[in-house]
Amino acid sequence: MRLHVPTPLRWSDLDAYGHVNNARMLSLLEEARIQAFWVSDDTSEHAAGASTAVLDATPGATTITLIARQEVEYLAPIPYQRQPVDIELWIGHMGGASLDVCYEVYSPAGVDPRVLYTRAVTTIVLVDAVTERPRRIGDTERAAWEPYLGDPIAFRRR
Amino acid sequence: MRLHVPTPLRWSDLDAYGHVNNARMLSLLEEARIQAFWVSDDTSEHAAGASTAVLDATPGATTITLIARQEVEYLAPIPYQRQPVDIELWIGHMGGASLDVCYEVYSPAGVDPRVLYTRAVTTIVLVDAVTERPRRIGDTERAAWEPYLGDPIAFRRR
Amino acid sequence: MRLHVPTPLRWSDLDAYGHVNNARMLSLLEEARIQAFWVSDDTSEHAAGASTAVLDATPGATTITLIARQEVEYLAPIPYQRQPVDIELWIGHMGGASLDVCYEVYSPAGVDPRVLYTRAVTTIVLVDAVTERPRRIGDTERAAWEPYLGDPIAFRRR
Amino acid sequence: MRLHVPTPLRWSDLDAYGHVNNARMLSLLEEARIQAFWVSDDTSEHAAGASTAVLDATPGATTITLIARQEVEYLAPIPYQRQPVDIELWIGHMGGASLDVCYEVYSPAGVDPRVLYTRAVTTIVLVDAVTERPRRIGDTERAAWEPYLGDPIAFRRR
Repeated sequence: MRLHVPTPLRWSDLDAYGHVNNARMLSLLEEARIQAFWVSDDTSEHAAGASTAVLDATPGATTITLIARQEVEYLAPIPYQRQPVDIELWIGHMGGASLDVCYEVYSPAGVDPRVLYTRAVTTIVLVDAVTERPRRIGDTERAAWEPYLGDPIAFRRR
Repeated sequence: MRLHVPTPLRWSDLDAYGHVNNARMLSLLEEARIQAFWVSDDTSEHAAGASTAVLDATPGATTITLIARQEVEYLAPIPYQRQPVDIELWIGHMGGASLDVCYEVYSPAGVDPRVLYTRAVTTIVLVDAVTERPRRIGDTERAAWEPYLGDPIAFRRR
Repeated sequence: MRLHVPTPLRWSDLDAYGHVNNARMLSLLEEARIQAFWVSDDTSEHAAGASTAVLDATPGATTITLIARQEVEYLAPIPYQRQPVDIELWIGHMGGASLDVCYEVYSPAGVDPRVLYTRAVTTIVLVDAVTERPRRIGDTERAAWEPYLGDPIAFRRR
Repeated sequence: MRLHVPTPLRWSDLDAYGHVNNARMLSLLEEARIQAFWVSDDTSEHAAGASTAVLDATPGATTITLIARQEVEYLAPIPYQRQPVDIELWIGHMGGASLDVCYEVYSPAGVDPRVLYTRAVTTIVLVDAVTERPRRIGDTERAAWEPYLGDPIAFRRR
């Protein structure tokens, strides 16, 4: 199963080539990931459905999410558009203290034909904020995330 | 009359102090301004209502919007929150080729008590993309914007 | 007396119009201000000379520098260039717990004719990190900064 | 042979965790890459030596550099520091119309012990600005870059 996180662009995401900048893409993925996995007081506004949002990783919380690795394939340039891009998100691997979040970034919902802009994966390590050492994925987290386990991405250019 | 433009924050808007960065605030104002004033193909998604969105200022268009001046008062720090902040937007002055866009940035709609985070004004000059010289505000533009003319901001700290 | 802080641009400072983005300008001013006023272990590398750098405002320090107000006039678009822009910086006003930092952003040193791109002022309030209330400018700070007191900026468009 | 590109951080590169943000890292790599490979009028200021800077890819030029893929391993968090980080840069693969730029991002020159913060690779495709199709690496480019051909990065976490 995949989550769909509609993620709004900003005009300032464009660079001098007039397309969403390649570095800025990682901020879009970050935002989609936070919407999907972080707990929120604003449950009514939760873009991706409450079920996976079990991770309290805001500053001050007990867990820090460390980004260990990212891999991104840019398949088509992204123009500025008002409609949020449609980020599909799933888990390609769940380890003891880490998980691989996979993404496919598509044109906004309803746009025809649908365009796949970007494929990416982020390896996240859960770190205890006090000890600053990796901590195991808990049972609640594992149960919440397991329905979203899927195949890892087969990158074309690797 | 004022426009209300709900403007989503991103976690990456925060700086090392854990609040929305002062420079990034101008990107939020930019985004609200674009939502309000630029024409869009995505009229169904138009946050602020189609009536003021008469300016074709995307790259390649006949008009460039030049930012001539900005003034911002930061009244309260803005934490990360999922709900979009509520940006009120009106026109404090309309000249021959320029206009002053005024903003008040508030806590998300429904949050009680309502907090005024920021007050700001942007002076925009309309520039002809070919001649690169200021061009007069047209009749259609003037008619679309006039209902949103209001008092300029009385800044506290000036 | 004015400080000169050479401040490097990045290609990612450009927006889709191909010039340094108006919001990003505030990050450049922020960087110049930090170079000039914050203490540093890297005294050998201190761009603006050690004399004004007496403020310990890094996260974790006893002082937070709160930005209360900014005013910016954009006089000429800034293209990407490898040479750092030349930011002149002085203090337009020193109050009890606040100061107005003034800037003029010029083309890189040695470029002829010299171009004034931007004029700006930032009002900074010194806040005690523990009490979260404004704290008075200390004697050491005042002595370090007084040689750089100068006239406030006369903005053209106000 | 490797290029060394000293790349200055900005305070605004930090996120709410107080370290250089993972997405922003790609802007640092972009900046180092531009310093190394793009032609420049400012040859006196050329950080990495003029010999590899043969690519005219500024907006308006005949070549667009398309980012096709990036892979990044984050090995240690990067604190704010005044001294530029030391980015080592070489070419891991040169194809017909594309090249893999490899990076190792180290603590500033002179810091002891030296810390390896990040390892990364970017696949760049050279695109003809007019036809918008990939174009072959030219003889001048190939000759300029060949001395910097080296082993591709062996990523730890792949």
